[in-house]
Amino acid sequence: MNILHSLPREDGFYMPAEFEPHEGCFLIWPERPDSWAGGAYAARKAFVKVISAIARWEKVTVFASYNQYENARASLPPQVRVAELSTDDAWARDVSPVIVKNAAGEIRGIDWGFNAWGGLYDGLYFPWDRDNHVARKACDLLDIDCYDRRDFILEGGSIHADGEGTVMVTEECLLSPGRNPDLSREEIEQVLRDNLGAEKVLWLPYGIWGDETNGHVDNICAFTAPGEVVLAWTDDERDPQYERSMADLNYLQSQRDAKGRPITVHKLPLPRPVYVTEAECAALEPMDGEPTRSPGERLAASYVNFYIANGGIILPAFGDPADEQAAAVLQRCFPGREIVPIPARDILTGGGNIHCITSQVPKGNR
Amino acid sequence: MNILHSLPREDGFYMPAEFEPHEGCFLIWPERPDSWAGGAYAARKAFVKVISAIARWEKVTVFASYNQYENARASLPPQVRVAELSTDDAWARDVSPVIVKNAAGEIRGIDWGFNAWGGLYDGLYFPWDRDNHVARKACDLLDIDCYDRRDFILEGGSIHADGEGTVMVTEECLLSPGRNPDLSREEIEQVLRDNLGAEKVLWLPYGIWGDETNGHVDNICAFTAPGEVVLAWTDDERDPQYERSMADLNYLQSQRDAKGRPITVHKLPLPRPVYVTEAECAALEPMDGEPTRSPGERLAASYVNFYIANGGIILPAFGDPADEQAAAVLQRCFPGREIVPIPARDILTGGGNIHCITSQVPKGNR
Repeated sequence: MNILHSLPREDGFYMPAEFEPHEGCFLIWPERPDSWAGGAYAARKAFVKVISAIARWEKVTVFASYNQYENARASLPPQVRVAELSTDDAWARDVSPVIVKNAAGEIRGIDWGFNAWGGLYDGLYFPWDRDNHVARKACDLLDIDCYDRRDFILEGGSIHADGEGTVMVTEECLLSPGRNPDLSREEIEQVLRDNLGAEKVLWLPYGIWGDETNGHVDNICAFTAPGEVVLAWTDDERDPQYERSMADLNYLQSQRDAKGRPITVHKLPLPRPVYVTEAECAALEPMDGEPTRSPGERLAASYVNFYIANGGIILPAFGDPADEQAAAVLQRCFPGREIVPIPARDILTGGGNIHCITSQVPKGNR
Repeated sequence: MNILHSLPREDGFYMPAEFEPHEGCFLIWPERPDSWAGGAYAARKAFVKVISAIARWEKVTVFASYNQYENARASLPPQVRVAELSTDDAWARDVSPVIVKNAAGEIRGIDWGFNAWGGLYDGLYFPWDRDNHVARKACDLLDIDCYDRRDFILEGGSIHADGEGTVMVTEECLLSPGRNPDLSREEIEQVLRDNLGAEKVLWLPYGIWGDETNGHVDNICAFTAPGEVVLAWTDDERDPQYERSMADLNYLQSQRDAKGRPITVHKLPLPRPVYVTEAECAALEPMDGEPTRSPGERLAASYVNFYIANGGIILPAFGDPADEQAAAVLQRCFPGREIVPIPARDILTGGGNIHCITSQVPKGNR
């Protein structure tokens, strides 16, 4: 693995879309008892379901700590690879390399800086050094070169790409003061252009209300094809999400993508509000004295947080009537893929969902 | 990775010879301050030379602890892969999987039990749990199936195979009371037959005098071709090694291999005795209160501890007049390979040599 300091765009590399073919997927085995209730036991069961579903179509590599390697190995299907790797938590999307590709099909990784979604300003845990080393190690395991971009804070969940020059982010997240406070919006956009090969950056105003990542785009809006997105939506005007989704819709309808296309927006209904229970809070074990969640807190539940596997859509299910509606919308958007709903409450209570715990490796020439 | 409980021989698998083609090689980044003098600094420099030499011909994967990953990555050439993996020390030969192969070219690993060369009886450190987990993780990284043989204590350095049904061990090591004391010699031989596909086991009486592995075969004798070995040799009758090498020579000359061939023995001279210095001992930092070595202790220096890479022989050099003689013998044994001598004192003082710190992965069909 070479550590590169050049710019991917100048080297001819760009970020492919998630709906393009993958050679694999990374996840991290959950363990942290202040993120995952009940010693992470229920979360691990839910992760196994997600991993097993993805493994039907892709080579999955699961990173596990030294202490959890044998448990992960024994819990996961044999076609899944388990690799010892130290992390601070289990959000593979945000700590894995963003993989870029060139016209010849070569793939390389980008190792962004990671500061636990806001560092000492409003980050979610400290320290985060293990997480910050994951991307480089993942590139090393893949045996691909790695761009050193640790001077710029960015998580994989805060960007989406259509693979044709358009990248989508939220202002709420990328302009949040805990990430790159010394850079202007224009400078941040330039970093996205230089590293992801973006010719057009779509800046949605907002993410999901209450999302503790400062509104990652991957919980509110996702490309389903070039020029097409799904947007998390509610018709309930009293829901604080209503104005946010409406602002994003208006923005998207005012924009064109890198190829000059208008953006077709498919509304993906939100489930009814999901609140964390007293029992779930009591089952969290504080690691630094502060409670992670309070009973009655609304969780950032959204069907947009699905993973696009080669042959399927791994979709969070909440036991809500909207589960089926969401599956139906996505089946129309992805006619060639099987919709695989997975009960996701035990992932959601950790603070994210299926897209957040996965990170695809686009197919590359070797 | 499937964990298998069947017998490799019954599944059609056998251990190939080291001189057959490799797809790669494992090493472990040294760190332990009671094994490696001066905080392992000099050892790491020597390891880098060995790794760089092997990397000319093979894909090398180096396992490093969380704390040493970045140092290893920065110190090693880019074509070398570094993977985070916890170990107790740096003896890849003894803790890596022994890879077996079938007629179709499929490869699988064997995960033997490891107890630090003798466990609580006469083992060299405690605990050894990290080491005991390396083999399985290495198979997982290779994405090959793994035989669970943890109920039998064996290190890779205690066996050599000719790839044609003959396996060579020492009685001193395999019958030592710290390994499998409840098994008879016949039962131990049966384990070798069942797992390595051996039809004939050569039981040399002795290893190198003072070798703290209880006389691993890989420091005294190695196959250079089917029916041919090099044997560590001294003509000095006052050297305690003399009788040992003589006994091994007599044994080898009395035996035939699995194919019925007599064994051709090439004598490989020993260097002059190498003694650990007061300064080297002072630079060891005890981890459990006991000193690892005493000044004046004779080290088990031997040229037989070379590594056979695809295109070269990575040979320990001691700054001794015999360095050149040893290189000349090996050049005749391996006419198609480049002899690459590497100054090895800083590896030897850790307790082993180049063969001990390497473990080949035979070429397999994927």
